[in-house]
Amino acid sequence: MSEPRSSDETLDRRAFLTKSIAVAGAGVLGAAAPSPATANDPPETPPWMKAPGAPLGPYGQPAKYEAKVTRTLIRSQPGTTGTGASRTPLESLEGMITPSGLHFERHHSGIPDIDPDKHRVLIHGMVERPLVFTVDALMRYPMVSRIHFLECAGNSAPMYGATPPALTCGQVHGLVSCSEWTGVPLRILLQEAGVDPKAGWILAEGADAAAMSRSVPMAKAMDDAMLALYQNGERLRPENGYPVRLFLPGYEGNMSVKWLRRIKVTPTATMTKDETSKYSDLQADGKALMFTYPMDVKSVITRPSPGVGLKGAGLYEISGIAWSGNGTITRVDVSTDGGREWTAAELVPPVLPRAITRFRQAWRWNGAVTTIMSRATDDVRQVQPTREQLVREHGTNVIFHYTAIQAWRVEANGEVKNVYA
Amino acid sequence: MSEPRSSDETLDRRAFLTKSIAVAGAGVLGAAAPSPATANDPPETPPWMKAPGAPLGPYGQPAKYEAKVTRTLIRSQPGTTGTGASRTPLESLEGMITPSGLHFERHHSGIPDIDPDKHRVLIHGMVERPLVFTVDALMRYPMVSRIHFLECAGNSAPMYGATPPALTCGQVHGLVSCSEWTGVPLRILLQEAGVDPKAGWILAEGADAAAMSRSVPMAKAMDDAMLALYQNGERLRPENGYPVRLFLPGYEGNMSVKWLRRIKVTPTATMTKDETSKYSDLQADGKALMFTYPMDVKSVITRPSPGVGLKGAGLYEISGIAWSGNGTITRVDVSTDGGREWTAAELVPPVLPRAITRFRQAWRWNGAVTTIMSRATDDVRQVQPTREQLVREHGTNVIFHYTAIQAWRVEANGEVKNVYA
Repeated sequence: MSEPRSSDETLDRRAFLTKSIAVAGAGVLGAAAPSPATANDPPETPPWMKAPGAPLGPYGQPAKYEAKVTRTLIRSQPGTTGTGASRTPLESLEGMITPSGLHFERHHSGIPDIDPDKHRVLIHGMVERPLVFTVDALMRYPMVSRIHFLECAGNSAPMYGATPPALTCGQVHGLVSCSEWTGVPLRILLQEAGVDPKAGWILAEGADAAAMSRSVPMAKAMDDAMLALYQNGERLRPENGYPVRLFLPGYEGNMSVKWLRRIKVTPTATMTKDETSKYSDLQADGKALMFTYPMDVKSVITRPSPGVGLKGAGLYEISGIAWSGNGTITRVDVSTDGGREWTAAELVPPVLPRAITRFRQAWRWNGAVTTIMSRATDDVRQVQPTREQLVREHGTNVIFHYTAIQAWRVEANGEVKNVYA
Repeated sequence: MSEPRSSDETLDRRAFLTKSIAVAGAGVLGAAAPSPATANDPPETPPWMKAPGAPLGPYGQPAKYEAKVTRTLIRSQPGTTGTGASRTPLESLEGMITPSGLHFERHHSGIPDIDPDKHRVLIHGMVERPLVFTVDALMRYPMVSRIHFLECAGNSAPMYGATPPALTCGQVHGLVSCSEWTGVPLRILLQEAGVDPKAGWILAEGADAAAMSRSVPMAKAMDDAMLALYQNGERLRPENGYPVRLFLPGYEGNMSVKWLRRIKVTPTATMTKDETSKYSDLQADGKALMFTYPMDVKSVITRPSPGVGLKGAGLYEISGIAWSGNGTITRVDVSTDGGREWTAAELVPPVLPRAITRFRQAWRWNGAVTTIMSRATDDVRQVQPTREQLVREHGTNVIFHYTAIQAWRVEANGEVKNVYA
């Protein structure tokens, strides 16, 4: 057995991958280890090999055995069906891409049923040439494709509560997802309309019944903003803004206005209901922060996590996700002893700006109660704060921009619990 | 207007993105251009803004308006429902990721309905310790996540025919798809079983009714082979091998054995029916090539393409995909004049080994009949051949490994046709 790298038995990944396995053989994983085969022959023929299987199909779906892997619906407005949020089951997923069927949802008045042939996008306000685009016209423009996370400003809000919520990782932190987005750079369309140099902002409005609207600084609109038409290769899903949405890499989710119907070029921010009564950050002193756009650096361990526990002492892989709206993840440290010692986890390439980065860390669990946590750092040298630091700075009136280090307590029986630590 | 870079009016992309648009304004796109707005006011309220929209849901689906975007079923065995192939609608997709619902299918006896709790993977043969793995046991191991294409050896086979098939891009070339795959490196499991140093191969067998089986050289098994458990973030889809498949980056698709039930370590190749009677390449002289594993460098323009035509002269973006089983795409050249002049297209990052790479090239179409084509190069300096070169080397008895340059003829009315050129 290779030597652990630190006293808490956090193992070097390479040792897991080579030496420890090679030396220790089948016993290395403990309780969940593979069984020695009883005979060196092909195994018994299972029933599903005895008759032809199901036919090919035009559009595939997940296995029926995975029917429990769904978004968790959390409706914030009783009496409505379309106003609220649903969260990605992070604890059931791997890698960096979120399948579109499990991308989180946040709607302010349900999902509009938009006929793409009748949809229009207007660019007006302080422009030389107000323009109206059909979806077909947008399809003519040059496009960009980029893998980016999208996170609701209200993600992880239950963690501001006085006691740690007894929920799964996805139920707490699953208002973040990551897709490959393809669309037209907004800059090109604004240039075509001819933006007045005195204009400092745009207003983006959705074609939902709430006319969800946000103001965006012109600098962002002319930088990496896009009008997204495709998500993970295919056209946008209805709940993600079909047929066209604004996409603002790294910014709080609701600014990436779905079902985009107009962009008005304006001298200042419009102060819409969605950026004054909502999506502003009430501080401990009763004042509120506004226009807190980038989603700061953050990470969470997805396995093990509540509901995805351990089965006896032995070797495990800790797997998690990290992301930063300010740039690229440069480092994720993992502690398996409640924060005393930290070890740099492996970051799975490609590590991309404003995208989810998967991290992995081999761990030998000795079967004792302990607490595991992850701490991400990005390339602007932001480091994820502790919950204590975050609350000290922002109080607990606020429901947005919770970014603190998540601690999971591993019980002696292998169950995992959400704790403040 | 900026100057075109070559006589055939292939435009510099940066000119498209900045100068030409900024100077030419709304007229630049010709017939499909945006309309000037009639008033500088918000547009009329569409019906979908007048009532709350649809509720949130546990697992999302594409918009009903995209119902025509499906795999195309091509059943090779009349009288069966599960034996054949379905192709990805490449002409409707963008970016590098294929949504799992549209990943191509190729089954030899349908899709088995496998209970993951009852599924077992056996490693046996020339090993010290034959081992049986449950899916839960596999989930304990360290994993890797990588974005890779998968291509059936029989992709593009209709192009060996005497006349160019009048089919869409996906119907011809859609036996290629690209996903993020996550799983356990096979090397770790083989090391745990203890491979006899004299063993040169493995046999991989699927748990479908065809017991589809292929031999794989030990060098590949110990290199980048994985037992894939996740596809695009979620567990494998049934038609892609749920609950576990072998995945061999860059190799012909059916070697990545789906529904994997055993790996036998062997001294030599097993010569299964699936690598002798099938998946060998009959040459013009009546002899057959065997074990032609890597899928060579290849590309195709997906837009414009048959069914996705042009609407009048003006600026367009040519968009396409390139990939190589031998490594990384380093260059894609595009010709819009039947192959006389070629211009290097933009490669969309991240450009990853053995993954689909999206390329883009701005093009001003003057409205005359012409032929467009793309030619990919990889980092082992392989260059995609012309159809004439490919046929000269391999004849037309073969149905596998068609990799030639695809030519699309653009008619004066904007329709696009498949041609041999």
